[in-house]
Amino acid sequence: MNRKSLIDKINKKCSYLCIGLDTDFEKIPKHLQPNKNAVVDFNKAIIDATKAFCVSYKINTAFYEALGSKGWDAMEETVNYIPNSHLKIADAKRGDIGNTSAQYAKAFFETLKFDAITVAPYMGEDSIRPFLEYEDKWTIVLGLTSNKGANDFEMLKLLSETEEHLRPEFLYEHVLKTVCKWGNSNNCMFVTGATQAMELVNIRSIIPDHFLLVPGVGFQGGSLSEVSKYGMNKDCGLLVNVSRAVIYAGSGENFATEAGEIAKQYQTEMKSYL
Amino acid sequence: MNRKSLIDKINKKCSYLCIGLDTDFEKIPKHLQPNKNAVVDFNKAIIDATKAFCVSYKINTAFYEALGSKGWDAMEETVNYIPNSHLKIADAKRGDIGNTSAQYAKAFFETLKFDAITVAPYMGEDSIRPFLEYEDKWTIVLGLTSNKGANDFEMLKLLSETEEHLRPEFLYEHVLKTVCKWGNSNNCMFVTGATQAMELVNIRSIIPDHFLLVPGVGFQGGSLSEVSKYGMNKDCGLLVNVSRAVIYAGSGENFATEAGEIAKQYQTEMKSYL
Repeated sequence: MNRKSLIDKINKKCSYLCIGLDTDFEKIPKHLQPNKNAVVDFNKAIIDATKAFCVSYKINTAFYEALGSKGWDAMEETVNYIPNSHLKIADAKRGDIGNTSAQYAKAFFETLKFDAITVAPYMGEDSIRPFLEYEDKWTIVLGLTSNKGANDFEMLKLLSETEEHLRPEFLYEHVLKTVCKWGNSNNCMFVTGATQAMELVNIRSIIPDHFLLVPGVGFQGGSLSEVSKYGMNKDCGLLVNVSRAVIYAGSGENFATEAGEIAKQYQTEMKSYL
Repeated sequence: MNRKSLIDKINKKCSYLCIGLDTDFEKIPKHLQPNKNAVVDFNKAIIDATKAFCVSYKINTAFYEALGSKGWDAMEETVNYIPNSHLKIADAKRGDIGNTSAQYAKAFFETLKFDAITVAPYMGEDSIRPFLEYEDKWTIVLGLTSNKGANDFEMLKLLSETEEHLRPEFLYEHVLKTVCKWGNSNNCMFVTGATQAMELVNIRSIIPDHFLLVPGVGFQGGSLSEVSKYGMNKDCGLLVNVSRAVIYAGSGENFATEAGEIAKQYQTEMKSYL
């Protein structure tokens, strides 16, 4: 899915909601657990109930890998079930030396039919390039994440080689500035956590045009209002992800309906910001 | 496998060789490719021919994921085939927010029976802690990697908050100093590329006791002699990985024998350094 198509969908649905399918077998409704294909059954019901209110689904690979190869099957079945009208994101946080990253790109863009993958930047350019080489696919690089650990390395201050900076640069800022030269706003997005809303002003001064994938709204406590206020650009430029607050909205027979209602609430709020 | 057991095996076999099973279906001998389970057949033959000369195997998850769920099956079958006498490393470069990293730890330490996993540090403490909580398992954190991209971020100079440093600290040094406080030399190792041998003196001044997983010997051009000279500590403290140079040593009917011969050459050289 290319940038124009994504923007069209956001405008048409008045939504920049991404729903995270972090499906944990232990947390799905008890009545589904005896099913042979319980995780997929749960995901399909959630997708059916929420697809009108979101433009993207994000599959967190960890929750599927924890189940072994049958989890990988469930991931494949889920990604195939997501309508092609929705951007399909593999939240995989991959990244390795070039020939290995090329295999990850093949895994998620060819074998599994994802539109996008999250990538960790630590290993530098050759770890990211193989993902960027795919046409109409998205490489979503970690910028400033939503967790407490973001303060450990991402917020480290760098020694400036020149005198051009008025204040020291954070590592995450340098990552944004560097990676946005490797990719462009048509094939590259950045992860910026909703819990870091005040940094979004600064982030937008560095990458005004790029889409941002923003996790951390809902269970992690980030504010949709603040993210939208400080992060939105002329093309919207946001995909705000909510996982647990939507998919575990209910725990009984009506879990899907309840998930749909929460998704609709987010969409309604988003409409007011667009 | 705990530290004492690993050191005992190194001393007994006079080897600190780790063999990387980066098995690419396209590169395995032509006569094996028609087999239903070609990747596993290849891996089993390589393991049988090399296990006398190495103390560890490292499975690069990317090459298996590229095959989809049947690749995940092949990974499971391979890890189960590796003798328990050998340290089983998942080269997976995982890392995410705490509850997600806990799922990755479950995937590789429980569902798959690996002894160790490689982890990317960008997202900080809560992305690494869940791996460290397992007893007799190893968390192998990226320090200074073997690829060209290591210069992009890992070698960035940090602004010192104090005056204690004689020269600015590199990001990778700060990662080593920080992460070695979260784990210890009994549950934590670091990846340091063989192509960075001159940095090993410096690395050993920061983490004198930790084991280092050293990729980059062989195809990537790192020197076993230099790595051993600058990286070895009183307990050896090294696992030197060779992947392509061993597993693709031959391409015909005798591929396994030829792989075994190359593995033996590395072991013989290692014996001279121990």
